[in-house]
Amino acid sequence: MAENKSRREFLTSIGRAVGGSAVLKTMAAMGVGVSVTACGSSSAAPVSAPLPPPPPPPPGGMLSPRPGDWPANVGAGNSVVILGGGITGMTAALEMTRLGYSCTILEANSMAGGRNKTIRAGDSINETDSSQTCNFDFNSELYFNAGPARIAHHHEFLLGYCREFGVALETFVNDNRAALLHSTTSMGGQAIIARRVQADTRGYIARLLALAVNQNALDQELSASDKTNILQMLAGFGDLDGNFDYSGTSRAGFPGQENSGSRQRGALVNPLQLQDLITETFWQQRQGFPESLNQQATMLQPVGGMDRIARAFEAQVTNDLITEAQVTEIRKITNGVRITFDRLGTPTQLDADFCVCTIPATVLRNIPNDFSAAHQSEIANFNYSAAGKVAFQSRRFWEQDHNIYGGISWTTQDITQIWYPNSGFGQDNGILVGAYTFGGSAGVNFANLSPQERINMAVLQGGNLHSEMSTEVGRGISIAWPKIPFQLGAWGTSSPQTLLTPDEKIVFAGEHLSILQGWQEGAILSAYHAIDRVVANT
Amino acid sequence: MAENKSRREFLTSIGRAVGGSAVLKTMAAMGVGVSVTACGSSSAAPVSAPLPPPPPPPPGGMLSPRPGDWPANVGAGNSVVILGGGITGMTAALEMTRLGYSCTILEANSMAGGRNKTIRAGDSINETDSSQTCNFDFNSELYFNAGPARIAHHHEFLLGYCREFGVALETFVNDNRAALLHSTTSMGGQAIIARRVQADTRGYIARLLALAVNQNALDQELSASDKTNILQMLAGFGDLDGNFDYSGTSRAGFPGQENSGSRQRGALVNPLQLQDLITETFWQQRQGFPESLNQQATMLQPVGGMDRIARAFEAQVTNDLITEAQVTEIRKITNGVRITFDRLGTPTQLDADFCVCTIPATVLRNIPNDFSAAHQSEIANFNYSAAGKVAFQSRRFWEQDHNIYGGISWTTQDITQIWYPNSGFGQDNGILVGAYTFGGSAGVNFANLSPQERINMAVLQGGNLHSEMSTEVGRGISIAWPKIPFQLGAWGTSSPQTLLTPDEKIVFAGEHLSILQGWQEGAILSAYHAIDRVVANT
Repeated sequence: MAENKSRREFLTSIGRAVGGSAVLKTMAAMGVGVSVTACGSSSAAPVSAPLPPPPPPPPGGMLSPRPGDWPANVGAGNSVVILGGGITGMTAALEMTRLGYSCTILEANSMAGGRNKTIRAGDSINETDSSQTCNFDFNSELYFNAGPARIAHHHEFLLGYCREFGVALETFVNDNRAALLHSTTSMGGQAIIARRVQADTRGYIARLLALAVNQNALDQELSASDKTNILQMLAGFGDLDGNFDYSGTSRAGFPGQENSGSRQRGALVNPLQLQDLITETFWQQRQGFPESLNQQATMLQPVGGMDRIARAFEAQVTNDLITEAQVTEIRKITNGVRITFDRLGTPTQLDADFCVCTIPATVLRNIPNDFSAAHQSEIANFNYSAAGKVAFQSRRFWEQDHNIYGGISWTTQDITQIWYPNSGFGQDNGILVGAYTFGGSAGVNFANLSPQERINMAVLQGGNLHSEMSTEVGRGISIAWPKIPFQLGAWGTSSPQTLLTPDEKIVFAGEHLSILQGWQEGAILSAYHAIDRVVANT
Repeated sequence: MAENKSRREFLTSIGRAVGGSAVLKTMAAMGVGVSVTACGSSSAAPVSAPLPPPPPPPPGGMLSPRPGDWPANVGAGNSVVILGGGITGMTAALEMTRLGYSCTILEANSMAGGRNKTIRAGDSINETDSSQTCNFDFNSELYFNAGPARIAHHHEFLLGYCREFGVALETFVNDNRAALLHSTTSMGGQAIIARRVQADTRGYIARLLALAVNQNALDQELSASDKTNILQMLAGFGDLDGNFDYSGTSRAGFPGQENSGSRQRGALVNPLQLQDLITETFWQQRQGFPESLNQQATMLQPVGGMDRIARAFEAQVTNDLITEAQVTEIRKITNGVRITFDRLGTPTQLDADFCVCTIPATVLRNIPNDFSAAHQSEIANFNYSAAGKVAFQSRRFWEQDHNIYGGISWTTQDITQIWYPNSGFGQDNGILVGAYTFGGSAGVNFANLSPQERINMAVLQGGNLHSEMSTEVGRGISIAWPKIPFQLGAWGTSSPQTLLTPDEKIVFAGEHLSILQGWQEGAILSAYHAIDRVVANT
């Protein structure tokens, strides 16, 4: 379960505590349950071992709270200070205002949105030890979603707000069969077009199972009619021939397909070797990725950049939002909380009946506070992913020369992924995400590079997938979330326990405390949980 | 091979001639080769039998001709009359004009575009025995692509023209895991969310193969290390548990997922039964569909309707286009052709050095002509798909209530498919294609219904997938391609032979004579073939 949530993180980090069954029960009651994947994590597929069996269903409590669950006007006469103006904080303010609470959001930055951040011409990325300015051309399609960049179709609350606020959505492609898969240590180090890996894997699996069925190896499992039916099914599943053999399929394309499109016919492309497809888990993991619940088609993105959502939320809560307000102390007082914050050099105190604290644990651990020892300890030890990205402006060589429209290429190198723009198809130029590294040592290494070194790395490593990287891409800009002030991390990866319980009048919230770590929907679900706890205590 | 091209058609039509190896060689030389699927056909997966092994590669000739293959100005001083202003005819005119030929297109309708047809508020659909007017609201997203509606990412020539002409493209979704699969005769007649079928099929296949491997049933095929590796791969492929058993996966979602989104956790949804997944080929075929080469992600569509492409082509050839010109005779004359056509009641003769005839065989067979007996015979017997569609305007209940953003639901009923709009996500209303029936008896039955009967059928049958069909959809409009004048069919399904060879100065062209029957890219490839034949004869 925790393993399933971010298995890559689990396997690449050291010394992380994994919650036991007591935690499991608590999480289930919170709507935190089995089998979720963090937004950037590689897959629901295991990296090096099969999964343990899923835990038994929790005793009730399967639905986390949502608007509509709380009495009308329950908050009248009560004040709430919300620390952090990200998606969690703005959701809390929006919904608690609707319940009659008087809300104030304190946001350290000059704009709300948190990690929901889109970079365009003229925008800056300021890290703790560097500063960059984006010099893309001005064009509505030339943007870089530096934080979240996709929305699952079942993230119903985020999508509901998009509908309510009029944020237009379009398709985001996770699984483009024309994209590339590249391992430095197999297939001769050549990048392979994804359709070949997908089709050949299905073909070999179907062939082997058909062989076993025909050898009567599974007669204890399958009746005679099952055998007939399953053979027929496998022939379609793997595109097998009349002997249930696999010798290639048009699904894998034709030789030179990526350059000559549909007019080239004749011999099928030679199948990849089964041994090559199974000796490294890389090949299977990349195929499993778009099968996972949060990465399945249809994936979505806002038209024009993810921050359309941040701006729409911000417009809803603008009267309750204080920007450039840096929290310096969080204190308990009788029947409430006292927050001290610094705004443009002026320290200010704000008292409220409740506090919803959405500040990332990485930042919160350094703010003087009155939290319980247990809360402080979990905050101090909460792990975050060290994700980062590099973006370039470039001629759309991937579309014009390789028929790649959107989607993701994968590599075993530190850059991990290359993202192609999912919109503006056919325009001359686009923004290529030349690296999306998340978690583990690759993310830490990335964050420790200077912006120029990150660009150099993306060009060099990306060149193993696209030779155009060395000649065509430019105007690079990068972000390393561990070095972004007031965030200091990409998303939470520890299993929350104590932080799911309020500390007197202080309720903790954020994607890191949700069933969907690293997702904006998780931020919203956590806000609902926090509201539920405040309402219960009002 | 021919079987592979449109296997559904093959299996549902009777008495169709299938080309032998001589034809195969001819087709390969023409760039007509192995393993293509017609645009609407169900899958590369077999309907009732595994495929024969693929044919051996053709001796050379793997690339069909393309612009750039012909000498500059080769056509100077030569005239060409092009019969039909669809994508084939307009491509021929465009490219032959660039080669110096003097071109004239004769188009029977008042607009060019052929089957590339988008219906909006106020447009008419006139069939041979009925007439309908579209009463959708006026809105750029409220359109109905009555003919072609998607473009494969490797259809490079069509996409190249889109780029050249500035036709904006966006993603088309074939494989939405939130869409539904419905068989009247299995799973209790209940519509099943696609993610469950996909995930459970992978799970059972992986489990059974792992079982066989662990029982040493495949030791003749697999080395000890292969076995270790393949087990690890299968665990990820099927999301198996630690015992390589399959007992469900989060990939299949959680109970009530379609209505409660991501906040519902706890027990996994119960796996479907293996027997239910294999007793009908329907379940597997629908999964195989988006694996086929021409249906793989990323699929594309023009922003605002497919006829953006027709209008863009039309603008290129407008000086050479004569609309409302109905061809009444096609005659050979010394060193050329003589076409008689009727325009607004006035018969006219037009002589040219060459004729490129793109008129569908269904129409051409009734136009007096001087073709050879062999050409006439193939024209007379050429089969076409009887595809048809119904479209409705509706509240986007599929998005708002079921998290379905684009894509296709499938049913064993005659309506065959329900298409959800792939753009305008989040808007209040959208156009739902409530039936897309193609080929076989279902298509013929559909064409023989009145427009009102088709609507009634779509509402009734669609109600087995979406109860909202009976209360929310309206403004229905339908098209049955066998009854559209000057088309009389949706796309060619016979294997061309004689028609690939010119008849003196007359060259035949059209999607039906291409490697990609039913696709606009096929129309373009066929145009290139025709040009190549004319150039060779100039």
